[in-house]
Amino acid sequence: MIAKALLFDVFGTVVDWRGSIASDMQKFGAQHGIEQDWQQFALDWRSLYEPAMEAIRSGNRGYVKLDVLHRENLLTLLPRYGLENLSESAIDELNRVWHRLQPWADTLPGIYRLKRNFILASLSNGNIALMINLARHNHLPWDTILGSEPTRAYKPQPDVYLKSIEMLDLQPGECIMVAAHNSDLRAARSLGLQTAYINRPYEYGPAQTQDFEAEEQWDFCGDTMTDIAKLLGC
Amino acid sequence: MIAKALLFDVFGTVVDWRGSIASDMQKFGAQHGIEQDWQQFALDWRSLYEPAMEAIRSGNRGYVKLDVLHRENLLTLLPRYGLENLSESAIDELNRVWHRLQPWADTLPGIYRLKRNFILASLSNGNIALMINLARHNHLPWDTILGSEPTRAYKPQPDVYLKSIEMLDLQPGECIMVAAHNSDLRAARSLGLQTAYINRPYEYGPAQTQDFEAEEQWDFCGDTMTDIAKLLGC
Repeated sequence: MIAKALLFDVFGTVVDWRGSIASDMQKFGAQHGIEQDWQQFALDWRSLYEPAMEAIRSGNRGYVKLDVLHRENLLTLLPRYGLENLSESAIDELNRVWHRLQPWADTLPGIYRLKRNFILASLSNGNIALMINLARHNHLPWDTILGSEPTRAYKPQPDVYLKSIEMLDLQPGECIMVAAHNSDLRAARSLGLQTAYINRPYEYGPAQTQDFEAEEQWDFCGDTMTDIAKLLGC
Repeated sequence: MIAKALLFDVFGTVVDWRGSIASDMQKFGAQHGIEQDWQQFALDWRSLYEPAMEAIRSGNRGYVKLDVLHRENLLTLLPRYGLENLSESAIDELNRVWHRLQPWADTLPGIYRLKRNFILASLSNGNIALMINLARHNHLPWDTILGSEPTRAYKPQPDVYLKSIEMLDLQPGECIMVAAHNSDLRAARSLGLQTAYINRPYEYGPAQTQDFEAEEQWDFCGDTMTDIAKLLGC
């Protein structure tokens, strides 16, 4: 089936959350005279992400936006890094680092080629405001924001994929899920989407334990967004 | 309050539906050897829009996308214009004229100036796929598509405005509704939004009966999108 839309995972696939957070926190630490392992801080923050979403996926908690989960997790983390006395507005500002993440070097060159031929939408667990700010910060040319908040679920729940596709008036087979995570692509393929894998072996730095390679025969596989664009004839 | 986002009415405010439909139908008629008043066809089609939405707003019918309402209304209209024997795919293609409407001449120059300083979202009764295709056809730089489909209601129902604003994590006063229709702005103002009126006295051509001028002291008023950009300091 000819694909009409590309649906993008964002954290790790489009942007480098670990490097961006570590870099921002490095500056923050310098301003406040605090020396810490900010790479570890980024990893610790991210490690609280899955369990926080799982509470919602399991039905133990109603839907809340990822900005809220990020902030709760940040509050857990701050005392471990000597940052227990920040003001509310300073905490808000730190939490918004997720709105300012930097893209991988190949993201923009690849994504603008893809934009010519395909509808492009984010299909992230990030909430709409986060995705909009991230897009404006980096000039990501989404045609619209889909994913978690519009569907009020968290990946890999099927609703996130299927309701997003219904919003585009497309069939699953007309959409390609683009992700650096085999688990995301497994969920997408099981629902009938086409799949594109981008290898991001440095997403977690030395702490990376998975997603070093395509673990299944995904429809398109590359090391960069530009590779994917080429494979799709853009 | 400082505005952060502009929410746009689209049909009549951003694009010229009457002129675009008449022009498309003129070509279609020429190809099929049919002479009709295609300006009137556009007006007749549009006249079925409000009653179709009203069935949903009143609760007599569940939410369906505007593409569906447009198609039903088109089926009502076709026999009146000697077009009762079209194939299903030809009807689908005609219905998609709404996805190919042309902007007013001032739309793009104004909207790209506004893009620099504000989040821009469509807040239309059009469904998401329609809005995406329209944006791609005309290079409208929406940050995301809000409005009817994401909120499953039809303007001027409050949910369309309020749920859209909630998706942006903003307060109503941080948003400016931009429209060529006083009724749209009245609904927005009653919910706490700021308001910007663009005068479009030719939207309905000689058949226009209202919206020749700002009927209240809207916060910003102009004859073009560029006027609004200037008033907002862009």
